[in-house]
Amino acid sequence: MTTDPLVVFTPSGKRGRFPVGTPVLTAARQLGVDLDSVCGGRGICSKCQITPSHGEFPKHGITVREDALSDWNAVEQRYDDKRGLKPGRRLGCQATVQGDVVIDVPPESQVHRQVVRKAATARAITMDPATRLYFVEVDEPDMHSPTGDLERLARALKDQWDIDAVTADLSLLAKLQPVLRKGKWQVTVALYRDHHGGAARIVEIWPGLHESGLFGLAIDLGSTTIAGHLTDLDTGVVVASSGLMNPQIRFGEDLMSRVSYSMMNPGGDAEMTAAVRGALNDLAASIAAEADIDPALIVETVFVCNPVMHHLLLGFDPVELGQAPFALATSESLSLPARDLGLDAINPRARTYILPCIAGHVGADCAAVALSEEPGKSDDLVLIVDVGTNAELLLGDKSRVLACSSPTGPAFEGAQISSGQRAAPGAIERIEIDPATRTPRFRVIGSELWSDEPGFDDAIATTGVTGICGSGIIEAVAEMRMAGLLDESGLIGSAEQTGTWRCRPEGRTHAYLIHDATETGGPRITVTQGDIRAIQLAKSALYAGARLLMDNMNVDRVDRVVLAGAFGAHISTRHAMVLGMIPDAPLDKVTSAGNAAGTGARIALCNIGARAEIERVVRDITKVETAIEPKFQDHFVAANAIPHKTDPFPELAKVVTLPSPAFNAGGDAGATGGRRRRRRG
Amino acid sequence: MTTDPLVVFTPSGKRGRFPVGTPVLTAARQLGVDLDSVCGGRGICSKCQITPSHGEFPKHGITVREDALSDWNAVEQRYDDKRGLKPGRRLGCQATVQGDVVIDVPPESQVHRQVVRKAATARAITMDPATRLYFVEVDEPDMHSPTGDLERLARALKDQWDIDAVTADLSLLAKLQPVLRKGKWQVTVALYRDHHGGAARIVEIWPGLHESGLFGLAIDLGSTTIAGHLTDLDTGVVVASSGLMNPQIRFGEDLMSRVSYSMMNPGGDAEMTAAVRGALNDLAASIAAEADIDPALIVETVFVCNPVMHHLLLGFDPVELGQAPFALATSESLSLPARDLGLDAINPRARTYILPCIAGHVGADCAAVALSEEPGKSDDLVLIVDVGTNAELLLGDKSRVLACSSPTGPAFEGAQISSGQRAAPGAIERIEIDPATRTPRFRVIGSELWSDEPGFDDAIATTGVTGICGSGIIEAVAEMRMAGLLDESGLIGSAEQTGTWRCRPEGRTHAYLIHDATETGGPRITVTQGDIRAIQLAKSALYAGARLLMDNMNVDRVDRVVLAGAFGAHISTRHAMVLGMIPDAPLDKVTSAGNAAGTGARIALCNIGARAEIERVVRDITKVETAIEPKFQDHFVAANAIPHKTDPFPELAKVVTLPSPAFNAGGDAGATGGRRRRRRG
Repeated sequence: MTTDPLVVFTPSGKRGRFPVGTPVLTAARQLGVDLDSVCGGRGICSKCQITPSHGEFPKHGITVREDALSDWNAVEQRYDDKRGLKPGRRLGCQATVQGDVVIDVPPESQVHRQVVRKAATARAITMDPATRLYFVEVDEPDMHSPTGDLERLARALKDQWDIDAVTADLSLLAKLQPVLRKGKWQVTVALYRDHHGGAARIVEIWPGLHESGLFGLAIDLGSTTIAGHLTDLDTGVVVASSGLMNPQIRFGEDLMSRVSYSMMNPGGDAEMTAAVRGALNDLAASIAAEADIDPALIVETVFVCNPVMHHLLLGFDPVELGQAPFALATSESLSLPARDLGLDAINPRARTYILPCIAGHVGADCAAVALSEEPGKSDDLVLIVDVGTNAELLLGDKSRVLACSSPTGPAFEGAQISSGQRAAPGAIERIEIDPATRTPRFRVIGSELWSDEPGFDDAIATTGVTGICGSGIIEAVAEMRMAGLLDESGLIGSAEQTGTWRCRPEGRTHAYLIHDATETGGPRITVTQGDIRAIQLAKSALYAGARLLMDNMNVDRVDRVVLAGAFGAHISTRHAMVLGMIPDAPLDKVTSAGNAAGTGARIALCNIGARAEIERVVRDITKVETAIEPKFQDHFVAANAIPHKTDPFPELAKVVTLPSPAFNAGGDAGATGGRRRRRRG
Repeated sequence: MTTDPLVVFTPSGKRGRFPVGTPVLTAARQLGVDLDSVCGGRGICSKCQITPSHGEFPKHGITVREDALSDWNAVEQRYDDKRGLKPGRRLGCQATVQGDVVIDVPPESQVHRQVVRKAATARAITMDPATRLYFVEVDEPDMHSPTGDLERLARALKDQWDIDAVTADLSLLAKLQPVLRKGKWQVTVALYRDHHGGAARIVEIWPGLHESGLFGLAIDLGSTTIAGHLTDLDTGVVVASSGLMNPQIRFGEDLMSRVSYSMMNPGGDAEMTAAVRGALNDLAASIAAEADIDPALIVETVFVCNPVMHHLLLGFDPVELGQAPFALATSESLSLPARDLGLDAINPRARTYILPCIAGHVGADCAAVALSEEPGKSDDLVLIVDVGTNAELLLGDKSRVLACSSPTGPAFEGAQISSGQRAAPGAIERIEIDPATRTPRFRVIGSELWSDEPGFDDAIATTGVTGICGSGIIEAVAEMRMAGLLDESGLIGSAEQTGTWRCRPEGRTHAYLIHDATETGGPRITVTQGDIRAIQLAKSALYAGARLLMDNMNVDRVDRVVLAGAFGAHISTRHAMVLGMIPDAPLDKVTSAGNAAGTGARIALCNIGARAEIERVVRDITKVETAIEPKFQDHFVAANAIPHKTDPFPELAKVVTLPSPAFNAGGDAGATGGRRRRRRG
């Protein structure tokens, strides 16, 4: 009695017996081992490379002899001569099983290989893109049984790849006949499958084996900047990233002003739509040039954006988003031809996926954060804060997830601050105030040196010190509070009260001088009482939003806080907590997720299953509308104090002791309560 | 014990018992009675009008009292005041059941009402268009449970019409919000359902109840002419018909010359595509103007055309259709946005359906003939002949259907005939030759008078007698044969042989003079030996195609013959059979179906089920390729004689006795056999 050889695949551990002579690729497929192949086992695509191991394998109970696989054949030799096979590698479609064998499938040969993100969190993206390549051999036409070329291509895809139904645009069909004949009835097609089902769509076709790859563009479409990540849809590698300013800024800095522009100017929405679509084409062209690829190889785009950008991208007037009840034209995800968005710089048949919106001002960008950070899979209760002109908040754990947005206004971005500016070279981004001398030192973007370190002046000579950016103003206010220059109510003390000449009168209030370059024609950079008030408004809104979610979750504390967004990556968590921007939590439980929305877009680009997942997740998220919750106003007023009027901050107290000055016994130097205009963006 | 009243609907005979107070519309729906309603029972659309009958109904076993339905209510009164209800009519959604009642549903209140065609065959089209109107009331947005306007519209369609899933283009979504608000959350949507399933597509949306109708355009796209039939998608009535010349004629008269143009001129196919698309927009605009409707109300188009026109319409280079193996880019039906065909004169979201092609030169026009004439449902064996520059033939009965095309060339259209011309005023369309005197008389297009009747000259004064059209030349040749001027081989006899001076020498052959207007500056109209040869070539090809199908069907005779196409409607069946164009059959079994391709297009426009049916039928048709069948050549040569060299024509012999002259004992005055260039068109 003879038994068939045992074939064991690693790392999957899948195993089975196969007759002598079975190709390794065939064995892998029958066992459901994740081994790639574009050419369907014809020895031309080299995607199915494997590495046989030899020797004793007690764990698997087998001994693998040197001749466990067939000798190199002519196909492998030719491939090695032409392109080179790594030592020890074989082509899985050519090497056949001759005896018991252990076969390793290297990561690059796995269809669903994982791409580990560079970001702090170690979660990997499993590659399973919506668009993939298939090489097929198509029957030639036969007058005795006339069928169209498309129908014979479809039959080949069914027979050779088990793909049930295909469809194609006219522009693809128009090139079908010449490409089939040029490829001598061997072609590679890029097939797009929609995660909601239906026929696979032929996005592109090439004669013979296509080897120049396929790419997708994950786009984080922000009110201020547009960032794109050009991603190899085979490997998941980001081959180029590029960003540009959103040209809609000329119609209004923040989202509400763009909505207003649309309301005041007939056709204004169309102007803004044309502007952003033009910029997207510029972005696609420049990113393709940077990566040195043909833009026609970009076959997919994924967008994440806030609701107003969402509507302006799609060509919908955003006017309804500017007023209660903040009705979206459509809230669900969209799968559509990229050309419907005027994206003509990429493949003419490229597809676009836009993540669902959560509510009228909790957009697809927040959905992308949820996809990236997965609060609904968290064992502990996590608060995720994505701070922009508007802040979006997610609070949840495995039991449920809540979402809201909070009208923080643009103060956190340096706007409405007397010396504020956008994060750019020359902007103060870090500040420390010595609690004894009450003297500040700072760092500006573009230099690693502190202002009191030798060489600072030379290092910043080209930019100078031009203003304070968002992270800088947060640190400044928090440092002033820690140094006793600011009382709990947010009042700046006088020179007498604080003991430093830097607290100087300005009108009926005081301002703290950080840097004075007026003697050399530069600016005088101060933190004024108005700046403090603006920051208080913003942080109160943010904190009130978090509290409202906590009320709805029926909790008084959160286990951890994740700061998302570019801003979140730059601010000091300790300072943020001194300011009372976020609920009290152990400092080591406050982390930054970087550009979580952009990461969510990349996940949706690389994994079709993630699209179905985020659609389900968004449907299940409980939406909390801050604009109509009376408690939001109460929370907002109570959060005006620094860090807070009533809520204890026991974790903060473990690491920071705040002084308790009081610079105004009974007065009120600047109201922060009262009803506020809803601000978006 | 009380029983609920019995409600009997006529003409369906459906019946059931319903509680007192049940609206008639509700009862109809529960019984599956075909009673229309667009507004869903809100008393505003008036589609559900019914007529109650009163008195004794022994057949149904009931007596209907005058108060069997509720009294008129305010809604009906208002409707009657505003629009007027016909006497005896009630609104089915308002009138409620009070006692046993017999209710008639008049044809115009039936959803699936039938439209009887004007044409000879009495087959009716059952209305079930792909696009229909639905009135819905949509929930207003609610901040507490935020959803998009589209999602609430979808929910309303599900709740109020049981429609599962809807989708919409961006251009529709862009108008969704203002229309919903303008209609105060009551809107009418036009929904397109694809017969292959999938989500229903919102093609248009109107505030409130839309009452201006919906229209579709059935287009017969021929090589020479383009004909459109604007059809009311509610009633099935053709509200306007219009035709224009195919502007591609400037690139080549027949199809092969257009294929050649594309082969010889890079970009020539795109030029021809642009030309035909431009003409289609002109046609749509003019037909909408003629019917005085907004072109945006045209939401569907259906095309039938031959394969070359099919490819040129779709933007595919037809070069492969000009050479064996005559491969189509795609042979199956197409459902696509009309704008993909550049049709921008109609609704921007209109859909287009193109019937499947049967083979590389048996097109969607032949499929439409099959849909209209239904050979596969015929008890007896029917041959359907659609004569154009190319002839398409269908032969079949309930057991199977065969199809082929035959390269007849343009002679039947008056081309390549010495005095030939297109069918236009002044063209001879009917001819009789007195067998005794051998003198002809004729009629021309534009007058009902024969040329030997008084007043003829006056009647034709404006046009004159300008030439012979296709039906005229067929009659001329057949009459010459019957009058003994032409022998079986097709030779025209001399004056001596025929006994008439009208047979005059022309080179080495003879020509028969029909009309001489040279004295008044007009033409001399003769039938030359060359004309006879051209007609012989054409009719031999046609007959050979029919014989080939009969061979494949294993029969020697057909039960009936249907002549399709405008040409088929104009030719005399008796003359066609004398000529031997078609196989012998009883003359009363040779009928004309008129423009059967156009009728097929209208059927596919009005009934979504017909689309699935013709796709199934075409898949089942056996395609016979004349170009590679050696027997085709044999049949072609044998069919050269008039009517035929070997095949008996017993049915013809019953009505016509043909003389048997022989004008050339052993010679051959003009070969008709031999290999011929394949001609298309």
